[in-house]
Amino acid sequence: MAPEIFELGPTAVEGGATIPNLKLAYVTHGELNAEKSNAILFPTWFGGNHPSNAWIIGPDKALDPSRYFIVVVNIIGNGQSSSPSNTPAPFDGPRFPYVSVLDNVKAQRRLMSEVFGVDVLKLVVGRSMGAQVAFQWGAYYPDKVERILPFVGSARTSVHNYIFLENVKTAMTSDPAFEDGEYKEPLTLAFRRMRLVFDSWGLSQAFYRQNLHLKMGFATTREYLDRVQPGAVTDANNVLAQVATWQGADLSRNELYGGDYAKALAGITAKAIVMPSRTDMYFPPEDSEIEVSHMPNAELRVIPSVWGHRAGAPGTDPVDIAFVDQAVRDILAR
Amino acid sequence: MAPEIFELGPTAVEGGATIPNLKLAYVTHGELNAEKSNAILFPTWFGGNHPSNAWIIGPDKALDPSRYFIVVVNIIGNGQSSSPSNTPAPFDGPRFPYVSVLDNVKAQRRLMSEVFGVDVLKLVVGRSMGAQVAFQWGAYYPDKVERILPFVGSARTSVHNYIFLENVKTAMTSDPAFEDGEYKEPLTLAFRRMRLVFDSWGLSQAFYRQNLHLKMGFATTREYLDRVQPGAVTDANNVLAQVATWQGADLSRNELYGGDYAKALAGITAKAIVMPSRTDMYFPPEDSEIEVSHMPNAELRVIPSVWGHRAGAPGTDPVDIAFVDQAVRDILAR
Repeated sequence: MAPEIFELGPTAVEGGATIPNLKLAYVTHGELNAEKSNAILFPTWFGGNHPSNAWIIGPDKALDPSRYFIVVVNIIGNGQSSSPSNTPAPFDGPRFPYVSVLDNVKAQRRLMSEVFGVDVLKLVVGRSMGAQVAFQWGAYYPDKVERILPFVGSARTSVHNYIFLENVKTAMTSDPAFEDGEYKEPLTLAFRRMRLVFDSWGLSQAFYRQNLHLKMGFATTREYLDRVQPGAVTDANNVLAQVATWQGADLSRNELYGGDYAKALAGITAKAIVMPSRTDMYFPPEDSEIEVSHMPNAELRVIPSVWGHRAGAPGTDPVDIAFVDQAVRDILAR
Repeated sequence: MAPEIFELGPTAVEGGATIPNLKLAYVTHGELNAEKSNAILFPTWFGGNHPSNAWIIGPDKALDPSRYFIVVVNIIGNGQSSSPSNTPAPFDGPRFPYVSVLDNVKAQRRLMSEVFGVDVLKLVVGRSMGAQVAFQWGAYYPDKVERILPFVGSARTSVHNYIFLENVKTAMTSDPAFEDGEYKEPLTLAFRRMRLVFDSWGLSQAFYRQNLHLKMGFATTREYLDRVQPGAVTDANNVLAQVATWQGADLSRNELYGGDYAKALAGITAKAIVMPSRTDMYFPPEDSEIEVSHMPNAELRVIPSVWGHRAGAPGTDPVDIAFVDQAVRDILAR
């Protein structure tokens, strides 16, 4: 479905630029009630877009459009909201400025407030980079969000995660056709290389030990590695814009907290379930444990999965997806 | 120190070729006793060469040259033993054939037997790919080795490890100067990209969480990532030859075991201490646990380290290195 567009006008972002007309692309599910008390925000993740988020929305799901007003908002840089691929000069392509998680959160707050008149969100739920958005909402607008459910993500990007992402950047920039971001047609090699990075990082040792990759319908590991699998984000500069947002994620790097990580986590007064995957190699559960130890109203609930970072994602183990759904149910019941 | 060279003459390898004059480069520490019962074999690892192995050899170490005759043998492909970089046509550079771990073990057996008259080894100890060699010795020559001590390695390369290594291959082949292995001078970009792969894979999330990379003397993560750090293996085709050996490692893929992994492990009658690092991401301790469960005389002893795959390696935490040294002491005392 084609998304709605919210135009924010000239908007300064952390990269130092003012984007002349920043746009957020979003879709909604369900109806806002009269009290405007049933709004749930569900941002997308790195490499995803609004259709990607549909898998846990439905009448039989915790995110039930007959009860809640669910706003799926595209992360800036994903090709739907303002992005290198759709922004006019002087901020087109490789000239698109750095946009932080907080820039996203501020824009999302305006969306909810100016378009829907929603002041307080019932829940912000997000996966991966969307989880970073949920954490940032909780810390930056503590009285504007009642609940957060960040899963397979973190409140700030760890050094290890940052270094892993350098490999994703290399996948893009090493393509001879990349040409400093001035490529003339979509890149192929770059995305093949990126898939290889995620094939090794995004799942787990246990996943491959159980040969679950073959159970997806491949005869051999080679056939699996050589598969064609178009992603939602197909533009290299968009990938790099999102990597920059991810690498820079830190809920405390703003005027409220001045870089004090523990204080920022302590500032999240919303009810929270923080949900890492047991086998996630770049958002490992140890980081979530530290986060929760600083948060006043948070539960740590580890997804007991071998799917690594992909635990609970669309097209993965239904048991994990049900686990995520149950957590959404539980947090909404609090 | 310049290594000795053992010339094996025409030698068929698993890649299907016969290398006209296969060479093993080795150095020895200590003296072989009259009974020829104190020989220890210590192969190198991926990216290492014989000087790399010196760090746990010495009069104050378990590998004490006053007691043992220690033979450090270079893995084929590392630039010292026969390798793409030093083999004449028709097997030079990218034409160097696939050489398996078993090919190495067979050549090493000939070295010990023909050069030194040693029939039974007291110990084969090896780190990482050298651990794969130790496993293979135990399974292929069960009555020719009394003890094995494989650390931060595995008996066969897991699917996950294989996929991780595809990224190392990409680091080499993506360098525009690689030219299908026909490069005219040493590659720079390839090795920088490989270092980035190992900076993310070779340590651990906990290592970076504790900022141990900065304690190595870097002011920032960026400075650490941009450091210049020449390795022992500087030739891209040599790297690829070693990756191929590593990716193909499987102690059971030979006429003795016909691919039966459990049977091959059960065939290792040598006393063994199998020693993974708790935080190793590509040789995770779970794989070692499975290995030991099939081995009749093996102890699992996990290095309690945050140094990931590098636990116990030269230049790392002295506590881990002492842990490795103690294990060598213990296995030799059995």
